[in-house]
Amino acid sequence: MAGQGRLEGIFTPNMVPLDSQGNVNEPELRRYVDWMIDGGVHGLYPNGSTSEFTRFTPDERRRIIEITVDQTAGRVPILAGAAEANVRETLRACEHYAGLGVRAVAIVSPYYYRLSPDNVYAYFREIGRHTPVDVTLYNIPMFASPIDLATIQRLSEECERIVAIKDSSGDLPQMMRMIEAVRPNRPDFSFLTGWDPVLMPMMLVGCDGGTNASSGVVPELTRKLYDETKAGRLDEARRLQYAVCRLFDAMLYTVDFPEGVRVGVELRGFRMGQSRQPLAEKQVAAMAGLRETLRGLLAEEGLLGDSRAGGAPPDVASLDPLELGRIVTGVLAVLQERGILQTADR
Amino acid sequence: MAGQGRLEGIFTPNMVPLDSQGNVNEPELRRYVDWMIDGGVHGLYPNGSTSEFTRFTPDERRRIIEITVDQTAGRVPILAGAAEANVRETLRACEHYAGLGVRAVAIVSPYYYRLSPDNVYAYFREIGRHTPVDVTLYNIPMFASPIDLATIQRLSEECERIVAIKDSSGDLPQMMRMIEAVRPNRPDFSFLTGWDPVLMPMMLVGCDGGTNASSGVVPELTRKLYDETKAGRLDEARRLQYAVCRLFDAMLYTVDFPEGVRVGVELRGFRMGQSRQPLAEKQVAAMAGLRETLRGLLAEEGLLGDSRAGGAPPDVASLDPLELGRIVTGVLAVLQERGILQTADR
Amino acid sequence: MAGQGRLEGIFTPNMVPLDSQGNVNEPELRRYVDWMIDGGVHGLYPNGSTSEFTRFTPDERRRIIEITVDQTAGRVPILAGAAEANVRETLRACEHYAGLGVRAVAIVSPYYYRLSPDNVYAYFREIGRHTPVDVTLYNIPMFASPIDLATIQRLSEECERIVAIKDSSGDLPQMMRMIEAVRPNRPDFSFLTGWDPVLMPMMLVGCDGGTNASSGVVPELTRKLYDETKAGRLDEARRLQYAVCRLFDAMLYTVDFPEGVRVGVELRGFRMGQSRQPLAEKQVAAMAGLRETLRGLLAEEGLLGDSRAGGAPPDVASLDPLELGRIVTGVLAVLQERGILQTADR
Amino acid sequence: MAGQGRLEGIFTPNMVPLDSQGNVNEPELRRYVDWMIDGGVHGLYPNGSTSEFTRFTPDERRRIIEITVDQTAGRVPILAGAAEANVRETLRACEHYAGLGVRAVAIVSPYYYRLSPDNVYAYFREIGRHTPVDVTLYNIPMFASPIDLATIQRLSEECERIVAIKDSSGDLPQMMRMIEAVRPNRPDFSFLTGWDPVLMPMMLVGCDGGTNASSGVVPELTRKLYDETKAGRLDEARRLQYAVCRLFDAMLYTVDFPEGVRVGVELRGFRMGQSRQPLAEKQVAAMAGLRETLRGLLAEEGLLGDSRAGGAPPDVASLDPLELGRIVTGVLAVLQERGILQTADR
Repeated sequence: MAGQGRLEGIFTPNMVPLDSQGNVNEPELRRYVDWMIDGGVHGLYPNGSTSEFTRFTPDERRRIIEITVDQTAGRVPILAGAAEANVRETLRACEHYAGLGVRAVAIVSPYYYRLSPDNVYAYFREIGRHTPVDVTLYNIPMFASPIDLATIQRLSEECERIVAIKDSSGDLPQMMRMIEAVRPNRPDFSFLTGWDPVLMPMMLVGCDGGTNASSGVVPELTRKLYDETKAGRLDEARRLQYAVCRLFDAMLYTVDFPEGVRVGVELRGFRMGQSRQPLAEKQVAAMAGLRETLRGLLAEEGLLGDSRAGGAPPDVASLDPLELGRIVTGVLAVLQERGILQTADR
Repeated sequence: MAGQGRLEGIFTPNMVPLDSQGNVNEPELRRYVDWMIDGGVHGLYPNGSTSEFTRFTPDERRRIIEITVDQTAGRVPILAGAAEANVRETLRACEHYAGLGVRAVAIVSPYYYRLSPDNVYAYFREIGRHTPVDVTLYNIPMFASPIDLATIQRLSEECERIVAIKDSSGDLPQMMRMIEAVRPNRPDFSFLTGWDPVLMPMMLVGCDGGTNASSGVVPELTRKLYDETKAGRLDEARRLQYAVCRLFDAMLYTVDFPEGVRVGVELRGFRMGQSRQPLAEKQVAAMAGLRETLRGLLAEEGLLGDSRAGGAPPDVASLDPLELGRIVTGVLAVLQERGILQTADR
Repeated sequence: MAGQGRLEGIFTPNMVPLDSQGNVNEPELRRYVDWMIDGGVHGLYPNGSTSEFTRFTPDERRRIIEITVDQTAGRVPILAGAAEANVRETLRACEHYAGLGVRAVAIVSPYYYRLSPDNVYAYFREIGRHTPVDVTLYNIPMFASPIDLATIQRLSEECERIVAIKDSSGDLPQMMRMIEAVRPNRPDFSFLTGWDPVLMPMMLVGCDGGTNASSGVVPELTRKLYDETKAGRLDEARRLQYAVCRLFDAMLYTVDFPEGVRVGVELRGFRMGQSRQPLAEKQVAAMAGLRETLRGLLAEEGLLGDSRAGGAPPDVASLDPLELGRIVTGVLAVLQERGILQTADR
Repeated sequence: MAGQGRLEGIFTPNMVPLDSQGNVNEPELRRYVDWMIDGGVHGLYPNGSTSEFTRFTPDERRRIIEITVDQTAGRVPILAGAAEANVRETLRACEHYAGLGVRAVAIVSPYYYRLSPDNVYAYFREIGRHTPVDVTLYNIPMFASPIDLATIQRLSEECERIVAIKDSSGDLPQMMRMIEAVRPNRPDFSFLTGWDPVLMPMMLVGCDGGTNASSGVVPELTRKLYDETKAGRLDEARRLQYAVCRLFDAMLYTVDFPEGVRVGVELRGFRMGQSRQPLAEKQVAAMAGLRETLRGLLAEEGLLGDSRAGGAPPDVASLDPLELGRIVTGVLAVLQERGILQTADR
């Protein structure tokens, strides 16, 4: 699948619905894939950070890509997250995903250990030399070893299989420096931002699109933001960018990432199941508050009551009694803390 | 294996020797285990950060524990690193390691995502409720979500299976606060420091020992430091602490962690193989320099020429030609950079 | 001078030329003021960070404002940096500058101590209540206590004398959040960015202009960037934004701030004198290199050989022999370090 | 005053009492100086960070030193904070303080701007070359440009007038590295820690003493901690170190630094007046809570009801009505926030 031109548009790092046992909910994932494509996203990006790739086993990660490729059936390109425990395992994943026909893989910089720029370079060079499929570098300095400017430039010059960078730093001048350092020699190289609140400004300084968590919640909105920006209709683009910023902020800063996105996707009509990360009562209560906030923001954009997804919001029905109990306790705790509710024994 | 009293002493987070194919070198690992025990360490801590647990597959991690337990044969207690992709997988590992007879497991706080204190608490509470084996919390804020004071206190009060904390922050006042918050209610709770340069001061404010990377390189020295501190011979303890600090600094700040430790272990006579993390030429050259530095530091302590390990340093013989070429290139590059070597074409 | 409408455009935080004794060089400062106004800046902002306000005495700071106001003679508005040792001294400065007829003062958040948001609020509230002149908040989190969103919103609601914020964080989403939180209630409130590489994107999301160090070096360029962005000519604006980013990066990251700006202003024909901060040999050498880089960047934009300033670049003539000696030593050291020059005794 | 041997012991960075007009309260400062000396501190360190040196004018800073020297009358050595706006002003202050007969000056690394290590070195070298009085380097990386290891080593080798470092990082391994790098060549060089919770461990690895804020509140306790550590009575030293840590934590983390120290000094019987930094209602309420906490901690050590200071705690009497109103409002707000107090309109 070479020679397909520069990666462009919005690629969704989609979450993975889980069933009541905590396993991948395949039917719901397939339904979700269809819905996102119908919503206008240009591509899918399973096994990204929003997709909680680190919380799945190697086998589950493969299965997630297989389901996504199968369900997509060529309608949009797939960017498959392929980072595994080490270079050898990562290259095996690349081979497997190449065989499935993905457009490219995305590989996050080594994490846990914080590597020097030199070794980050060595890591991607090794991958770039042996990969059978196009590679997108994934820079997310808040979670993984940063990929610096010199490294990106060298890799773009030495490895033609490395064709893009997805940058989630949100650092606009850094994006400009990258574009300036790479584009003259590699006009085919693509620059994608993973920081939703700056999608419009990033595009205006030269980005090709984004891999945006919010596009898994409001695919129509991010698509429209992309289209209006591309068309130079800046007033409308600005309005949409502010709306996306509000949504993103609510999902990101109310609860631990990416739980807020899960709440958002559920509001659009999908049964996401419970997080594999146990949640504290306070977080559960905060999620209940976030649900209301998001409901309001979606309503503002006319995105609530959308029946495309075909399913009722699962807020209560799909929860087990234990979880329900936790939510109630959490909400009560917050109300008491704020003095809205009084306890007898104080 | 309950009721064995508080965890005390030096537990070594040992590296894992690899063979020429990059696989676990079982015979060399067994030889290394024997050597560390002979060197006086109080326990072993496989699958720690120094052990590069994230660079092995789940199956490899289990195999490493199995080999270690088998070779140790009860001579010293084992603290098994048991962190996996999520709570379910981690609990499965706990069960497996409990069955093998480890003294306890050590579980690092969730990493990649940076969780709020609330969710770090929820994570360990879930583990604490279901683990069949004693658990050591592992706090390493430079790599993983920090475990804060309130969280440690709550977990110590609510989960009797949580019996220790290994703290690699090196933050002495924080250790004092933890001891003060936990010890009154849990006299059996153990405090271990993972930051080698402060082992003596940490013990003097109340720590029970350490999980120290340097003890995999100089087990005799760290053991002596522990003993002298414990015995109140502060002048000798101080001298040893400065020596350990020099060694640790050299291994930690010359090259990316934990490559410096690998160099150190090789100097003691073990074939460690090449890192699974590809190394840049500059790093390889820096490792050559580090080897000389460490040789000098070991000689100062009379630890070179030690034939207990029974093997010649593998510096050259065990390297494949490709790697040799890289080292030479790297050294030349550094020499040129420093102007010691001149190139013709300048 | 009330009722003058929202602060808009480019305000230059100009450096202060020093004479051979290290004192304020009044004639050169007057000449520089004229040149900047001729270059098209919308206003001047003496005693900003680029102006090195902390390196002058309280008396010198007053004198700098007096000279600037006098020389400007009403041609452009003045934004006077008025931060002093404490609230009382700061208010005295406000009164003095009000008497001189400045358009507004700019007051940086308390620095050295890092204050909580609560006390940052209390500080500005006290000033807002008693100031006789309009106040611009100055947020520069890398140097001073950050002013957070809630604080800005409260101050804008409670203090009508607080009329603007100058934000040097370069954080675009944060700027959007501020605009969204403040503008509905305070349509007169102005938002200025102090981060030059994002002036265009900041304006495109709603900013009113900037206080940009580079406008003291290339006032024509920043003015044109402002005008083109304002007019919606995005291709030309983008080209200029990239040029400003290159200049800014060179001045900011080659040597300690704000020495690079001094080099830039000298290249435009002003005798800036030597820094009050003693400079290491390496920094002096780096400044020599920077001078060449900037010369190239200015030439690209047709800004070299500009004789408007009427003075020859002072590179060598104005330096005292001691300084000259330092430069030569510094350059030699760098050349040796890079192996381009060889020493006999190695 | 040369040749007086290494600086040793506890030097108190004392706060400055203010009168009802916010000016330096000279009689109370004199009374406070006597009390600290009676309490056993080895020296005084006016114009340190705890002394709020940045909140006074240059003239006030000089006056504070003059009063302190005069009142001390040679009973203990004075370490005078001498940092001013630039090198020239700082050297003038050095000359003035030398004339007064201080033992040494302490000069904080340049702040506001974050300088490179090279320029920090150049700054202190310039001072070291021209100072007429011994100089203590002051490293406090959380507030000012850090002084790194290489810089300290070079300065100690090149400038004999630089005789000590006061390090407030609390970084124990860093202190060990400094001692190891400097002491062999400069046995007269002194190492003082400004981080109270680690005074004992710092001394045990080789420090000569400390400049500790808590010694302005509990001079008897810090002196005893120093003596017991020096005498090798580690059990008692450890107990005292934990007590100092509790006090320090309470004063440092409840309210903005150094307001907590002010509360502590007031509890010992001095009228400190109100902070020059306006305080938010929440901070005022937190200070009321802190007062109770400190009262408890002081009582534990038998330091309450101490009548040496001869004055009643000024809690209420000395406050002006406006301030009193603020305190009440603040306390009410906190109570409501915690739900202990209910409002009618909720």
